[in-house]
Amino acid sequence: MLQEIAEQPEALVRTIEAERTKISRLGKFLKDRDIDLIVLVARGSSDNAALFGRYLLEIKTGIPVSLSAPSVHTLYKAKLKLRHALVIGVSQSGEGEDVNLVLEKARNCGAYTVGITNEPAASMTHIVDETLVMHGGRERSVAATKTFTGQMMLFYMLAAELGGGSPDLTYQAIPDFAAKAYEQKAALLELVQRYVFMENCVVVGRGLAYANAYELALKLMETCYVVAERFSSADFLHGPLAMVERHFPVILFAPPGVMLPGVRDLIGRLKELHADTLVITGDLEAAAACSRAIIMPREIDEFLAPIPYMIPGQLFAALLAEAKGLDPDAPRSLSKVTRTL
Amino acid sequence: MLQEIAEQPEALVRTIEAERTKISRLGKFLKDRDIDLIVLVARGSSDNAALFGRYLLEIKTGIPVSLSAPSVHTLYKAKLKLRHALVIGVSQSGEGEDVNLVLEKARNCGAYTVGITNEPAASMTHIVDETLVMHGGRERSVAATKTFTGQMMLFYMLAAELGGGSPDLTYQAIPDFAAKAYEQKAALLELVQRYVFMENCVVVGRGLAYANAYELALKLMETCYVVAERFSSADFLHGPLAMVERHFPVILFAPPGVMLPGVRDLIGRLKELHADTLVITGDLEAAAACSRAIIMPREIDEFLAPIPYMIPGQLFAALLAEAKGLDPDAPRSLSKVTRTL
Repeated sequence: MLQEIAEQPEALVRTIEAERTKISRLGKFLKDRDIDLIVLVARGSSDNAALFGRYLLEIKTGIPVSLSAPSVHTLYKAKLKLRHALVIGVSQSGEGEDVNLVLEKARNCGAYTVGITNEPAASMTHIVDETLVMHGGRERSVAATKTFTGQMMLFYMLAAELGGGSPDLTYQAIPDFAAKAYEQKAALLELVQRYVFMENCVVVGRGLAYANAYELALKLMETCYVVAERFSSADFLHGPLAMVERHFPVILFAPPGVMLPGVRDLIGRLKELHADTLVITGDLEAAAACSRAIIMPREIDEFLAPIPYMIPGQLFAALLAEAKGLDPDAPRSLSKVTRTL
Repeated sequence: MLQEIAEQPEALVRTIEAERTKISRLGKFLKDRDIDLIVLVARGSSDNAALFGRYLLEIKTGIPVSLSAPSVHTLYKAKLKLRHALVIGVSQSGEGEDVNLVLEKARNCGAYTVGITNEPAASMTHIVDETLVMHGGRERSVAATKTFTGQMMLFYMLAAELGGGSPDLTYQAIPDFAAKAYEQKAALLELVQRYVFMENCVVVGRGLAYANAYELALKLMETCYVVAERFSSADFLHGPLAMVERHFPVILFAPPGVMLPGVRDLIGRLKELHADTLVITGDLEAAAACSRAIIMPREIDEFLAPIPYMIPGQLFAALLAEAKGLDPDAPRSLSKVTRTL
C-alpha cells in the first residue's frame, strides 16, 4: 500500500498522457449527442471516486448527475428512461458483476456507456461503448490508492472536455502537487503515534472534498479497523454532531475555496465541544484552530485539491495501520475483488 | 419522541386522506409534462426519507432519480439542465435555507418543483409549484419520527400515481402494519438493556430498506450518542467488513423479498466472525441465525415494509437513550431547525 501510494504522481502522468487523445475525441462525440443526464455506477473506493466525479461533472458541465443504486437494476429489475444518458461504470478490476450488469442494462435502455478501469482486458471493456484506462499498473494492495486517484484524474479530463475547456481545470498540475503532498510522509510517521488507540472517529469534507472524507473513512475502516463515520460538514450538523464529546476525534478536509468558511465554523463549534481535531488544510487559520494539522501547499486551489489532499490521508491510514501492528496490505475478511449483485 | 412514535399510525391515515386528491391531480399533470429526471433535495432525516423515495420512484416509475448535492447550487453556483426535471424538496420545517435555495434555483432552470413539509405555511410553500403536507401535527422532539414516516408515505402516494397505478403499492395497509409494529414496545423495553454499553455499531439495509439503515443510525447518533455507521449489505462487503471482530454489534433490516438472500448470506458471514447481530425481520431463518431478533408480522411484503420496519428502530433508539440515562427529546448540541448552506 505504501509503495502504491508513492507511485501515484507517476501513475497520474501516465493516465493523462495515455488517455488525453481518446477523451478529447469522446468529449466531442458526446457533445453532439446532447446528453442530459450522467449516471455513475461503482462500489467501494471506486464509488468514492464516482462521488467526486458527481460534484465535478455537475459543477463543470451543468449536466445533472445521479449515483446509481445498482440493486434497482440488478434485483428490482427496473427499466429506466436512459435514452439521453451517459452511464459511466467505475471498477478497478473491471470485474464487478453488479457494475457490469448495470452497464449492460443501461446500454439496452439506450444509454451511451463508458467504463473506467485499471485492467484494459477486463470484462467491463467488452460491455461498454468506450473504455478509459487508469494505467496505474497492477494494484496489489487490497486497499485501493493509486487506482482511486487515477479514477479521479479521468473524471477531471472528462469534465474539462464536456465542460467546454474549463480553463481553471489545469489538471496537468496535479501530479506535481501529489508529489509535494507525498513529502509529508516523514511528519505523518510521527503524527500517527498519537492515534494508535483511536477506536472511532468522524471524517468530514464537503463539495469537491466530500469524496475525500468517504475515502479516508473507508481506508481507516479497512486497514486500521477504526469505526470511521463520514459526513459533509453540513450533514454533520443535522444530527450526528450530538455524538461529539470531549476528545472525540474529528478529521477534516479544509482546502481553500467556497467550502472553507463553513468548515472554519464547524471547527469553532468542535472546539467549544472540546473535540480532538485533525485538519488537512492549506489555510493557516483553520490549522491554528485544530488540535493537529497537516499543512498543504497554499498554491493548490479548491478545484485541484482533491487528489493531493488525499495523499496524506492515504499515508495516515497506511502508517497508522502499521503503528497499530496491523498489515495494511492484508485486511482481515477482505479480498481484492468483491462479488456482489 | 416516544409519544410522537406512537402517533404515527394515525398521522399516516391523516396524510393519506388529506393529500390523496391533490396527489392524484399532480400525478396526471406530471404525466403530461414528460418528466425524464427526478431530483430530491433534503438534509438530515428528510434526506433519509428522500433516499427511500429514490429507490421507490426509480423502481416504480422508471424515471432516473438523483439525490441533490445542495452545495453544487448554493456554493458552487452551478446552473443545471433541469428543463424536464421534477425537483422535490423535503423538509420537516420547510425552513431549511439550503433546500429552499436549491428549489428556487431549480425553478429558475425550468424544473417543476414540489415541496414536502409538515408546516403548511412554511417558506418552502411560497417557492414551489406544489406543496404536499405530512399532516403529522407539530413535531416537538428534535429527533424526527412521525415526519420521517409521513414523508415516506407521500413518496408512496406519488410513486403509485406516477407509476401508473402500481397495484402492489397498497399503501393504505401501512398504517395498520405500523400499529402492529408498535406492539413490540414492551419487548423492546427489555431488549435495549442489553445494549446500554454499546459505543459503536453498524446498521445494514439495502434497496427499499437502505434508508431504514440510514435513519436508524442517525437516531442512534443523535439520541444515544452511539457511533453508528450505515451501509447497504453490498457496500458493507467492499471494505468496512474488516472492522468486524468478535462481539462487534451489527443491526440488520431483513424484510422479505429480493434483498433477503443477500442479507442472509451476510448474516452467515457475520456469524463466522462472531459478530453480535440484531435483526429486524419477518423471516424466521434470518431471525434464528442472529444473536437477537425483532420479529415482524409475516404478511408485510417488501414494498410495504419500510415504514412498519422503522417503528421498532425508532423505539429501540428512544428506549435505549432512556436506558442510558439520556433524554432523547433534548440531544446535546442540536436544535430542531438546523441552518446550513
